[in-house]
Amino acid sequence: MPTPLPVSLDRAAPTPLYDQLAAQLRAAIDDGVLQPGDPFENELSLAARLHVSRPTVRKAIAQLVADGLLVRHRGIGTRVASPVVHQRDDLTPLYDELDRTGRRPQTQVVRLVPARRNKVAATALGLDPRVPLVYLERVRWSDGRPLVVLRSWLPPQFATLTAAELGEHGLYELLGRRGVVADVARQRLGARMATLTERRQLQLTRADAVLTVLWQSYTADGTPIEYGDHAYRGDQYVVDNTLRNP
Amino acid sequence: MPTPLPVSLDRAAPTPLYDQLAAQLRAAIDDGVLQPGDPFENELSLAARLHVSRPTVRKAIAQLVADGLLVRHRGIGTRVASPVVHQRDDLTPLYDELDRTGRRPQTQVVRLVPARRNKVAATALGLDPRVPLVYLERVRWSDGRPLVVLRSWLPPQFATLTAAELGEHGLYELLGRRGVVADVARQRLGARMATLTERRQLQLTRADAVLTVLWQSYTADGTPIEYGDHAYRGDQYVVDNTLRNP
Repeated sequence: MPTPLPVSLDRAAPTPLYDQLAAQLRAAIDDGVLQPGDPFENELSLAARLHVSRPTVRKAIAQLVADGLLVRHRGIGTRVASPVVHQRDDLTPLYDELDRTGRRPQTQVVRLVPARRNKVAATALGLDPRVPLVYLERVRWSDGRPLVVLRSWLPPQFATLTAAELGEHGLYELLGRRGVVADVARQRLGARMATLTERRQLQLTRADAVLTVLWQSYTADGTPIEYGDHAYRGDQYVVDNTLRNP
Repeated sequence: MPTPLPVSLDRAAPTPLYDQLAAQLRAAIDDGVLQPGDPFENELSLAARLHVSRPTVRKAIAQLVADGLLVRHRGIGTRVASPVVHQRDDLTPLYDELDRTGRRPQTQVVRLVPARRNKVAATALGLDPRVPLVYLERVRWSDGRPLVVLRSWLPPQFATLTAAELGEHGLYELLGRRGVVADVARQRLGARMATLTERRQLQLTRADAVLTVLWQSYTADGTPIEYGDHAYRGDQYVVDNTLRNP
C-alpha cells in the first residue's frame, strides 16, 4: 500500500492546483520521501484525499511521467522511476533488482556454448585451463532498453542450462534451483569505450562509455560459480559501495 | 628485502640465458608470486645468486622494463609495476596507495576557493545550502602521468588549508593533522566520456572514458568530511570490491 504523501494546496494562490501538486510530488521524490521503485498512490485515491478533480491529479502525474520521475506499468500501476539502475552493496542479482524496482527485466540469449575452452576463465574458476567451460552471452534489457552485455563462463556441470530457461529467468535463480547459491562475489570495476559489438548490442554510439565488471562469484564453501566479463551502459548503471578504515 | 625468486636456468638449452631469465621473471609476475609494488631483487644480487654475468641480468630486466612489468625508481630501486591503480576494498587514501606501490604521487592544485556556495555539496555535507564551502580542485599524477581530477567540497572550518601544503601532501593526511580522521566513505561509481576540461587535465582524447566517483566521507561519529566528484582515467584505474549475500 503506497504511503499517502503530505500535500498542502493553496486554493487562493495564482499557481494552478495541478502545478502546485506536481511541484510537491517532485519534491517528495527529490528529497527521497519516495524512493525509486516505490508504488505511487493512484489517481482516484489522491483526488479523493486532496479534494481535487481527477483531471487535476492526472495533469500533475502526467508532468512527472513526462519528466521521467514516474513510470506507468500495465498491471502494476505507477511507480517512482530511477534514472539509473543501482548496484547496492550486496549480492542481489541484477534480474531481481530490476524486478524489485518495477523495470521489467528481459533477457536475450545471444550465445550458449556448452563446451568452450578459455584459459583465463578456467583458471579463475579454479579448473585446469584445458577443461571446457559453459560459455553464455546475454543482453539484459530493462524497461525495453538494453542495459548490459553479460559474458559468463561457468563450470562444466552447468552445461544442462538451456537458452529457453535463460530467456525467462535470471542466471542465479536457475543456479539456485540446481542447489548452487552464491554467497560472495568479487568484482573489479572499470570504465572504457564500448567496443563495436557492444555498441550494436547496447544501442550505443561511438561517443558512449561502458562500466565494466570483471566478476567472480563463489558458494559459501568457496567453490567458484561464475567468471563474468560484463559491460553496462554508462548512462544507465551505477555501483554504490561503502569503504571502511582498514 | 625482496624475496629471492626461484629461477632455474638450463645452460645447455639453445635459448639465451637472459631470455630464459626474463621468461621466468615474467611468469612470477603473471602468476602473482611478485605483486605490484613489490621491490625487485637487484641486478648484483640476482647475478651472484644465479651465477650469471651482470649484463645477462641487465638484459633480462631491461626486457621487463620495456614491457612495463617492472618500473625503475631513482633512490627506491626497481619495483613490480601495475598496469592500473587499484582501489581496494578499504579506505586507504589514493595518495598513500600510490606511495605504497612506488608510483611517485604528485598533486597539481588547480583551484582552491575558501568560500564558494554549492547547494548539492552543502546538503551532502549536512549543512545549510547557503553555507559557503571550501572548494578544492586537484589533478593527481602517478609516475609522471595524470591519473584523476579530484573536485572536493569541504566544510568551512577547512578554509585554512593552503595550496602549498596540498601540493605536497594528500588531503587526508592534512585533515589527519587537524585531528579529523575519515572512518567510512560512501561512493557511487559510474562511467562516462571525459568532458572537454577533463580531456585537457588528464591528457585524454575524445575517445577516452573516465571512471567517475561521487564520494562522501565521514568521521567515526558520522560528521561529514568531504563531498567529492572525482574522475579517473579509465585506462589507469580500477576499483575492486566484494559483495556478500544480504
